[in-house]
Amino acid sequence: MNGIEIVSTGYAKIEKTLDNQQLEQMVETSNEWIVSRTGILKRHLSDKSSAFLAIEAAKKATQNQDLSQLALIIVATMTPENNTPSNACLVQKALGLNHQSMMCFDINVACSGYVYALKVAQSLLEENQYGLVIGSEQLSSIVDYQDRNTCILFGDGAAATLIKKSQKLFFSYLDSDGNEEVLFSKRNDYLKMKGQDVFKFAIKAIPLSIDHVLNQAKMTLNDIDYVICHQANERIIKHVYKKYQCSSEKFYMNLQEYGNTSAASIPLALAKMNEQGLLQKGMKIILVGFGGGLTWGAILMEW
Amino acid sequence: MNGIEIVSTGYAKIEKTLDNQQLEQMVETSNEWIVSRTGILKRHLSDKSSAFLAIEAAKKATQNQDLSQLALIIVATMTPENNTPSNACLVQKALGLNHQSMMCFDINVACSGYVYALKVAQSLLEENQYGLVIGSEQLSSIVDYQDRNTCILFGDGAAATLIKKSQKLFFSYLDSDGNEEVLFSKRNDYLKMKGQDVFKFAIKAIPLSIDHVLNQAKMTLNDIDYVICHQANERIIKHVYKKYQCSSEKFYMNLQEYGNTSAASIPLALAKMNEQGLLQKGMKIILVGFGGGLTWGAILMEW
Repeated sequence: MNGIEIVSTGYAKIEKTLDNQQLEQMVETSNEWIVSRTGILKRHLSDKSSAFLAIEAAKKATQNQDLSQLALIIVATMTPENNTPSNACLVQKALGLNHQSMMCFDINVACSGYVYALKVAQSLLEENQYGLVIGSEQLSSIVDYQDRNTCILFGDGAAATLIKKSQKLFFSYLDSDGNEEVLFSKRNDYLKMKGQDVFKFAIKAIPLSIDHVLNQAKMTLNDIDYVICHQANERIIKHVYKKYQCSSEKFYMNLQEYGNTSAASIPLALAKMNEQGLLQKGMKIILVGFGGGLTWGAILMEW
Repeated sequence: MNGIEIVSTGYAKIEKTLDNQQLEQMVETSNEWIVSRTGILKRHLSDKSSAFLAIEAAKKATQNQDLSQLALIIVATMTPENNTPSNACLVQKALGLNHQSMMCFDINVACSGYVYALKVAQSLLEENQYGLVIGSEQLSSIVDYQDRNTCILFGDGAAATLIKKSQKLFFSYLDSDGNEEVLFSKRNDYLKMKGQDVFKFAIKAIPLSIDHVLNQAKMTLNDIDYVICHQANERIIKHVYKKYQCSSEKFYMNLQEYGNTSAASIPLALAKMNEQGLLQKGMKIILVGFGGGLTWGAILMEW
């Protein structure tokens, strides 16, 4: 099959955290309220740009790897360091890969960025070629820490996946509906969202996406080892696994520790799962993105 | 061949212009200096966002076209209206195409954005599918009109191309070298450039790109009807056609009227050429992008 394989993963370590107790001092909220409505205990905040974080993640993912066949670097981000150069070009430079021929570019699909980027990479890569697909966000640069509806949700993060073209399973479904009311952020303004509308959108978009790729693969959720959703909110993910009458273990979650890191959340989950030894060769996983645009979609692949 | 065909084109009309005489009143420069160094006579400036311009271009390119098989919208821009939603999603909404399944996303490859986006679209589209590939920039939002090195160069613009998967010729070469010194713009800051270094980069990158796709196609410049370079500077393009000992007519230029519109310049040239009846079925053209990143590349295709 015309698929891809994830060879290695890496993520940026961000020391500084913002926990619910600290948020209680900043806006009118409480730890209990945040935990019950979102499942989030803390977020990581970076003083450094999303390009800096992408570079750190990329260096970790590419440690001891042969990069001679690397043909592309894609960074999914809605908080790039620059208008130009792209984060991807800065990663290329930092890895010492200038003068090796490759495509480097950023894509913006908000929280669906990683699944979109993975599909774009899969379609661009030719036999024997490798790609680096990164999700990286400094969301703290567009979060209003006086707005209790959003500042409790978002965190900074970056994770990278080194992929190669392979014959493994690969099914994808990516979709979008233009909408500037539910979730939006002007270029020089804060992120704003209508929480209930996002919730309603998400609990529709996730099962729709999962069902699409399962149908393509002629599989059921029983054939899948892990579903890794964009880590927006525990209530969204709980709603989905209950709908499928499926065990919570199948739906990986680390949003407790990181909050919503937008395009970084899925590769960050993959990198953490990989570090924890949860992913074994041959396992079947589904990645599900959803977010601003509105955009959503899923990829069913083999680890 | 696994190529694409450009079905129709459209561009945004921007009434407001800024000519060299007006610039003489704003910064220490002169019409003679600007014309001799750049070839530019005027630029168009828009009060409206790059999403607004992309929508206008998209509406014109899709007039009277069957969009039922449209599977993706890509907007190449380094001046998006929002952090989220993407310009592409706003185009989808404005065309009344919400609820039709498609991928919508923005890519940022600066002035190489259109050729990169066209390659991405070509690789994503499946048989019988259509795509909308747009370059759209409101560069006036990041140009410092007190900096005479840059404000004389850039203009706003947007153009859209409706493409479909086809068996026509398609050869591509896309490359990059991370660099944040020659041409750069922090997210909330003006565009800055070292003009001489950009010139040196461009006169190397353009022939390199042209030669790459000609070699792939086993053709020479004699087989090509038009070379459409990113419209950065007349001196750059002149240098290239002189190097090839080639007539100036083969290298289309409209930078006199528009200045450098970054990702919009190549589709804008295509749309104007199309309007002028210069492009005939079966003609072979080469599109050449180069710019911030640094990024560059070419596509050889059949009209």
